[in-house]
Amino acid sequence: MNLESVIAAAAGREKADTLFINGKVINVFTGEVLEQSVAVKDGYICGLGSAPDPFGSLALCRYSADEVVDLKGMYLAPGFMDAHVHIESSMVTPPQFAKGVLPFGTTTVIADPHEIANVMGVAGVEYMIKAARDLPMNILFALPSCVPATDMETSGAILNASAIAPLLNHEKIVALAEMMNYPGVIFTNPDVMAKLKEARRAGRTVDGHAPRVTGRELQAYAAAGIYSDHECTTAQEAIEKLRLGVHIMVREGTCAKNLDDLLPAVNENTWQQMMWCTDDRHPEEILTQGHIDHIIRRAIRSGIDPVRAIQMATINCARYFGIKDAGAIAPGRRADMVLFKNIENPVIEKVFVKGVLVAQNGVFNHEREPALSARVPETMNFDPDTVDFSIPCAGKSGQARVIRVIPDQVVTMEAVMEVLQRDGYALSDIKRDMVKIAVIERYSGNSGMTTGFVTGLGLSKGAIASTVAHDSHNVIVAGADDDDMMFAVRAVKELGGGFVVVCGRKLMATLPLPVAGLMSYDSIEQVSGAMAGVIKAVKSLGSPLSDPFMTLGFLALPVIPSLKITDRGLVDVEKFQIVELFV
Amino acid sequence: MNLESVIAAAAGREKADTLFINGKVINVFTGEVLEQSVAVKDGYICGLGSAPDPFGSLALCRYSADEVVDLKGMYLAPGFMDAHVHIESSMVTPPQFAKGVLPFGTTTVIADPHEIANVMGVAGVEYMIKAARDLPMNILFALPSCVPATDMETSGAILNASAIAPLLNHEKIVALAEMMNYPGVIFTNPDVMAKLKEARRAGRTVDGHAPRVTGRELQAYAAAGIYSDHECTTAQEAIEKLRLGVHIMVREGTCAKNLDDLLPAVNENTWQQMMWCTDDRHPEEILTQGHIDHIIRRAIRSGIDPVRAIQMATINCARYFGIKDAGAIAPGRRADMVLFKNIENPVIEKVFVKGVLVAQNGVFNHEREPALSARVPETMNFDPDTVDFSIPCAGKSGQARVIRVIPDQVVTMEAVMEVLQRDGYALSDIKRDMVKIAVIERYSGNSGMTTGFVTGLGLSKGAIASTVAHDSHNVIVAGADDDDMMFAVRAVKELGGGFVVVCGRKLMATLPLPVAGLMSYDSIEQVSGAMAGVIKAVKSLGSPLSDPFMTLGFLALPVIPSLKITDRGLVDVEKFQIVELFV
Repeated sequence: MNLESVIAAAAGREKADTLFINGKVINVFTGEVLEQSVAVKDGYICGLGSAPDPFGSLALCRYSADEVVDLKGMYLAPGFMDAHVHIESSMVTPPQFAKGVLPFGTTTVIADPHEIANVMGVAGVEYMIKAARDLPMNILFALPSCVPATDMETSGAILNASAIAPLLNHEKIVALAEMMNYPGVIFTNPDVMAKLKEARRAGRTVDGHAPRVTGRELQAYAAAGIYSDHECTTAQEAIEKLRLGVHIMVREGTCAKNLDDLLPAVNENTWQQMMWCTDDRHPEEILTQGHIDHIIRRAIRSGIDPVRAIQMATINCARYFGIKDAGAIAPGRRADMVLFKNIENPVIEKVFVKGVLVAQNGVFNHEREPALSARVPETMNFDPDTVDFSIPCAGKSGQARVIRVIPDQVVTMEAVMEVLQRDGYALSDIKRDMVKIAVIERYSGNSGMTTGFVTGLGLSKGAIASTVAHDSHNVIVAGADDDDMMFAVRAVKELGGGFVVVCGRKLMATLPLPVAGLMSYDSIEQVSGAMAGVIKAVKSLGSPLSDPFMTLGFLALPVIPSLKITDRGLVDVEKFQIVELFV
Repeated sequence: MNLESVIAAAAGREKADTLFINGKVINVFTGEVLEQSVAVKDGYICGLGSAPDPFGSLALCRYSADEVVDLKGMYLAPGFMDAHVHIESSMVTPPQFAKGVLPFGTTTVIADPHEIANVMGVAGVEYMIKAARDLPMNILFALPSCVPATDMETSGAILNASAIAPLLNHEKIVALAEMMNYPGVIFTNPDVMAKLKEARRAGRTVDGHAPRVTGRELQAYAAAGIYSDHECTTAQEAIEKLRLGVHIMVREGTCAKNLDDLLPAVNENTWQQMMWCTDDRHPEEILTQGHIDHIIRRAIRSGIDPVRAIQMATINCARYFGIKDAGAIAPGRRADMVLFKNIENPVIEKVFVKGVLVAQNGVFNHEREPALSARVPETMNFDPDTVDFSIPCAGKSGQARVIRVIPDQVVTMEAVMEVLQRDGYALSDIKRDMVKIAVIERYSGNSGMTTGFVTGLGLSKGAIASTVAHDSHNVIVAGADDDDMMFAVRAVKELGGGFVVVCGRKLMATLPLPVAGLMSYDSIEQVSGAMAGVIKAVKSLGSPLSDPFMTLGFLALPVIPSLKITDRGLVDVEKFQIVELFV
């Protein structure tokens, strides 16, 4: 930004580049909708043409520009902001993510590269920052605070306080990301405290993640200087947090949808402490429903004033993070703006980033394709030849702890089931929908692994494997047949990561995710198409689940109840310890 | 702050120090008034006892503490914050200022040491920071941005961008103070731009000062990244600024009272972008009316919701400056709290700072007297023997430009008046209330000076002199008699600065201000008493003005219209140039 030039254009000494006329401009500061023009210089808003004056005495402002864009009476709002998103969940790189969500009016995101950081550490964070440069989108970052999520799994990297300290001053990093280790905060774990103090020192806000944390524990969490939460699932949970000064990010993602439940917490006081976020949103949902615009429309339909819904999507997020150059149509801010006809149901028709049209009628149409990202190194460092899915029987009862999938939920239950045995080994038992599941560590070369059982996947044959396995993203594989599991594991390694579906030692479908095993270099449309293919293939193996790879992806996450599996063992999350397979 | 200990107390693992029970606690986040207890540990709020739950499902919070304070059903609000104040205007040092305003519930101020910086430069800023340490008050600072105010006067120091850059990272400095040089911003003066960029780099907000700046010039000022203004005098001016994202500090000081005029700009949207400040408030007004509490009471009387008025006095200011440890009664914030009975007319009964009672029923009663400040070096570096008030006549018309005082205003007018002459010299003419006025530079030892005429002071005999002469604070003296003027100048030098009233070569009254010629080491009550004495003495010389030293103090300020006098000459402020005395 050439500040001098923007000021000169604001003062009228220089001509603006572009003048947007005949718009109904949403002023997120005063809540007004003002008929005025918007002058843009060097990508930044320099001035607003005269608006109706309630007092009849304001000075007239007129601007001229090289180019005039007639908005034909449509509404012009600041580009929307996503307060908390894992770009990795869209399974595309930042350039393709930008291309995918810009048409829906999201022009700024605060991205938490938590997933790639678990795979690649600081290099992963740096890759995302690099890949986000020079895009027609304002991609800012929150620095992952909890890598790895627990010490009951092997991640690709460890980000301790000394690793994150230098990054906190990076100009693109605006926060310490969701502090998921709330027990560590409440019990003042030294490394957690060191991270919080580093963030404080760097003047960065600290995002929270405190599902159902309440009472004195919540007060301890807030006292630690954690200023937001995006895990509320009820209005009372939100109110309890709001009262402590915690900002609420209302999440409407693919795995968790909290909008309806949280809207009762929005009122004349609290709205200014609330904002929207998607957290995790899968390609298909983005393409069919939209992004932050979808949340705004739903909020309006539920009775939230349209301007309020837009304020919560823009200035509230900007203020929370201390972002001073976005979130409003006002001098000195990025000319990131969205255009729509109907304020009661804003469907984004045009999107401008830094004053330039980047999308129209849902289609990305910036003259420059988002640049291909730098490539990342291989992350599939394990040896398939050492993989062994055989389970020697142990214990006397013949009963094993089995992960019971709950359809469309990230939580699981523990089932204790009789094991099908042959020659002293436990086998998959498709009749009772009890198949083998394994997690293989893919970073160190040690290829450490655990094998157990899962019920509820509904696989009657074949196997599926994936490298999207929260939060350490090791290889997770499940199948009715050991050989197909083996085939799947070899295939996923060959792809450099991704999703594979195998049946009868044949590849049925794949979605390659060569970027850290998490993302594709392809477009969000291509990924969405491939995703549909793999889901269809899994269904053909008998699975009734709507998104079996999403379900599979959470079976290794040992911070969500009840029974999970990691490379180090079967984890009883309630007891927070590794347990034996056999009872 | 021992963060670990506060968290442990919040979680209930450690006992709190103090528990405030039976209070009606004002929650500035949700706008609620909640019957709950407040637990304090190590000076910080660690937890809030259970409040009524609109949803009937929140966890119960109970705290225990070494000491229990029964608030007997009274209202407990966060301590008030003054968003912009020149402590120098209270004419006392920070410790005495704290003692003076704490009883009124002001527990945090953002002080702009602009006056002492004009006298002593960085050393003056550092003195104020040092003098503010270890006080039972949260004194934070905004760094003076415009020292000197103009180049048509000689100040004691120059603070350019390279001088302020290192200070911007000081932990007690939260902003770059009021950018009064708005022409410099609008015309992108390099030193001004360098200062703005340094503030941006340091992540500090920039306060504005843009009286009546409007239209494109205002947009240029806002585009530069100036985020507040405390100079609005009309609601439309405030609305115009609010629409640009500029935060409005509603000022109610001694010299400028804008509350009534700005209240029409407060509405359901704008309130969150507005806050209170005093700017300049003289001792007597503080002692008789109060401080921020006075503004809150007046706002409530004018129809502002009491909780809103308190939110504007607390959390709004905290958020604007990014102050995360004050402005709310919430875990992790300083236990700075005020207690009162009637929310419709909050008269502060008790004030707690960091959980400790510091004032009761309007009286400072902290166990420890505020420590005596470090002393500052002498700033009266001029030679009275070189001072000469004789004015040789010049020009042919026999007419001179005379500063016409407008009672109780800081602006003046220019009067062209016939001069009383004798032997080729122009003389004071008390019959027409046209007396000599001079400004003598008091820093460099050069003793540069200008002599002219003023009408409207009403002095029929004697002389008055002062070292409070905005913004360079040179010696300003006016009188009916040259010898008395000389006597006054010698006297004010001997005092080390202050106010003197002289008649017949005798001192009638003095208010010594040995701290940079601006402040006394005495208490605010003592200063107020001495002030009454000097005003009474000036009135006995014939002046009809209510506060002649305040009037005198603005006659040297060449940024406020119309005719002013500095050590360098008579200044036509509209033309922004030095003009001849004789027409």
